[in-house]
Amino acid sequence: MSDTEPQASTEAAAGAEPSDDQARGLSRRGLLGLLGAGAGGLLVGGAAGAVVGASVASANTSASGATVHPFYGEHQAGITTPVQEHLHFAAFDMADGATRDDLVSLLKDWSYAASRMTQGLDVSASGAVGGSPQAPPDDTGEALGLPASALTVTFGFGPGLFDARFGLASRKPAELAELPRFLGDQLIPMSSSGDLCIQACADDPQVAVHAIRNLSRIAFGRAQIRWSQLGFGRTSKTTVDQSTPRNLFGFKDGTANILADDQEALKKNVWVAASDAPAWLAGGSYLVARKIRMTVEVWDRLRLAEQERTIGRNKGEGAPLSGGSEHTEPDFTKAGKTADPAIDPRSHVKLAHPDFNKGVRILRRGYNFVDGNDDLGQLSAGLFFLSYQRDPQQFIGIQRALAKDLMSEYLVHTGSAIFAVPPGAKEGSFVGAGLFA
Amino acid sequence: MSDTEPQASTEAAAGAEPSDDQARGLSRRGLLGLLGAGAGGLLVGGAAGAVVGASVASANTSASGATVHPFYGEHQAGITTPVQEHLHFAAFDMADGATRDDLVSLLKDWSYAASRMTQGLDVSASGAVGGSPQAPPDDTGEALGLPASALTVTFGFGPGLFDARFGLASRKPAELAELPRFLGDQLIPMSSSGDLCIQACADDPQVAVHAIRNLSRIAFGRAQIRWSQLGFGRTSKTTVDQSTPRNLFGFKDGTANILADDQEALKKNVWVAASDAPAWLAGGSYLVARKIRMTVEVWDRLRLAEQERTIGRNKGEGAPLSGGSEHTEPDFTKAGKTADPAIDPRSHVKLAHPDFNKGVRILRRGYNFVDGNDDLGQLSAGLFFLSYQRDPQQFIGIQRALAKDLMSEYLVHTGSAIFAVPPGAKEGSFVGAGLFA
Repeated sequence: MSDTEPQASTEAAAGAEPSDDQARGLSRRGLLGLLGAGAGGLLVGGAAGAVVGASVASANTSASGATVHPFYGEHQAGITTPVQEHLHFAAFDMADGATRDDLVSLLKDWSYAASRMTQGLDVSASGAVGGSPQAPPDDTGEALGLPASALTVTFGFGPGLFDARFGLASRKPAELAELPRFLGDQLIPMSSSGDLCIQACADDPQVAVHAIRNLSRIAFGRAQIRWSQLGFGRTSKTTVDQSTPRNLFGFKDGTANILADDQEALKKNVWVAASDAPAWLAGGSYLVARKIRMTVEVWDRLRLAEQERTIGRNKGEGAPLSGGSEHTEPDFTKAGKTADPAIDPRSHVKLAHPDFNKGVRILRRGYNFVDGNDDLGQLSAGLFFLSYQRDPQQFIGIQRALAKDLMSEYLVHTGSAIFAVPPGAKEGSFVGAGLFA
Repeated sequence: MSDTEPQASTEAAAGAEPSDDQARGLSRRGLLGLLGAGAGGLLVGGAAGAVVGASVASANTSASGATVHPFYGEHQAGITTPVQEHLHFAAFDMADGATRDDLVSLLKDWSYAASRMTQGLDVSASGAVGGSPQAPPDDTGEALGLPASALTVTFGFGPGLFDARFGLASRKPAELAELPRFLGDQLIPMSSSGDLCIQACADDPQVAVHAIRNLSRIAFGRAQIRWSQLGFGRTSKTTVDQSTPRNLFGFKDGTANILADDQEALKKNVWVAASDAPAWLAGGSYLVARKIRMTVEVWDRLRLAEQERTIGRNKGEGAPLSGGSEHTEPDFTKAGKTADPAIDPRSHVKLAHPDFNKGVRILRRGYNFVDGNDDLGQLSAGLFFLSYQRDPQQFIGIQRALAKDLMSEYLVHTGSAIFAVPPGAKEGSFVGAGLFA
């Protein structure tokens, strides 16, 4: 390696102390360089493959590229973690004939690989150049040289996993069931459901894709991808430092999201409590995934006033139509230019507001998507909606309220899935271990 | 707008002086803030909507975010421009019954909009908040607040454009014809060909998507999208400063690409010369687009030695198997461990090498793509290959040589298109004006 770029700095995740390894800003290339050079002082050990003394020489060195989030912890990363710029999400089905042992070994292998990739390491110590030229490399290699790029890998369990095949029927959370049919649903079965899911988020799409590809490869013979989705342009924020992004309707999205430092709101709305059943899910959450096609060409022909009436906020700044600026609380009683309220009662901001949903809030983590275009030349584009909540009923209640939403005229839901997201793993253990205890 | 972020610096494109406007690092939000506040001193004029005194307040301010490339110039931007991180490429067909006037007005409107968006401005001065609340906004708004992000917009003309409908039959370049069938082609007609194309490259995918969406909207009634493709993770580089990226086989790609500062190679291999026919294309180029599905799951099962033999380079560093480092010239005569050459005669690096292709080189500008997965749970992934050349025969010759390539076993070509790419436009004119002169 002729690269002699300076060591990149590491930004610690909000509220999380980076480990010594993370603080050193490891990269796959750094590791490889040392291996290739046969440098002394290299120490590989522990489940996460801790490496001492590697330097960073990254293809995409940037502040965000050097960000490393811990994999192990009380909660899984990728929920309150500052929302990264890119997503690769995949739902898996267990293979026919797969056993409980296959499932446990898969979850162990997945956790081990994720614990490495999130730290900017190859999927295993053998890496992309392999232990032997006569064997396939353990890592597919396309992220070689790229830093961790804030990668998080979050695992979830779908309703179908809790059956007799795996001896899990008695451990199924009562709340975990496929979502009911909603108005506007035109679900495609093979873009919906799944026994397992993996949400990979990173600031570099190549790093997120690399994670899903390698985890899919590790699953070979035990589980296979049912559907997957790439996303870009986060449509939410989880820290006050992040600006509010815009969705493909051109409006700011996620202004009122639950933020990572709002422990009270997280406790009330996101994390499954120890007093909630089942015990193995305490510290976890429920994840709802919805693929929502937006008919952007129709939307784009609406006059601005109608777009703003539909959303209930202005387009430029995202301020509620009752006045103020982006973060002003909407005043649903204030009159507009006529005697009618300034904010239409069927606007998105009103129908989704906690005041009209029993105080319920959810943590949103969606992304924009564009899957090329359809046969009519219209963009196959929309929102890949992801939300985390303590109870699926939170989402169900809000989504039912949104049936009257003016915005629903411009939306078609084509994918739907729900997963129980276990708590984080202790170092040396694996995500979901509690389910098998 | 409460944002008071500092003015971002502007990186000039290699070899091009930024205009005064560019040097001020305009952003859509900066412009909007001024318009919204009704600030004095605002001056809008000229075809490109030059704005004086706007400040930058960007959602994604970063070194690359602030990069602004000139739209007007001798050549179109997006060819030798340092390769950006993201691509949205779209091929269009002219509408039934569209006339020569429709085509000319479309190209004028496209050039005007592109000249603004590439500078970080809204698609028109009316912007995403419109001239009137009672009309649809001119800009769809999802890039509001985002900087130019190094956006380039490059236009091309397909063979189908040169017919009697538009009075262009006599102006068709003799070299411009659909590509011949190659071994490994399994082309999908609706992912191939097109009367027109737009290549939008940017460091933020939302900015690239915004460009294609708005240009598609502008085309309404005159042309519509035939097919489109998103890409990430550039698989080439056009400047020595850029590191060589990796494709989805995990190997470095683009090591031997033509670089922007190699005027001699550009003149010989990329730009159509004044002495080439037709005259309207002088300073332009030919663009080949190929969607190449890579069977990554099969590739990933190959042992490392076989992967490296197939490519002719090692995986870690990208050095030729004849020895040295990434940029060492391959020695095709050097013996390996056996009497056979170290570099297999059917390896990709040998068959694509200029020494075995009459010295021919092309400027590659491809991107990785992942379109989710197929029904078998395998990634719909691969390389969206883009190359610029002075004559389509350069690509055709190389592609024919690659029929014997060991790598072709792991590739299926599903899309193919060719376009004549006119030279750049003079300020106030439009791309392709010479075709109608």
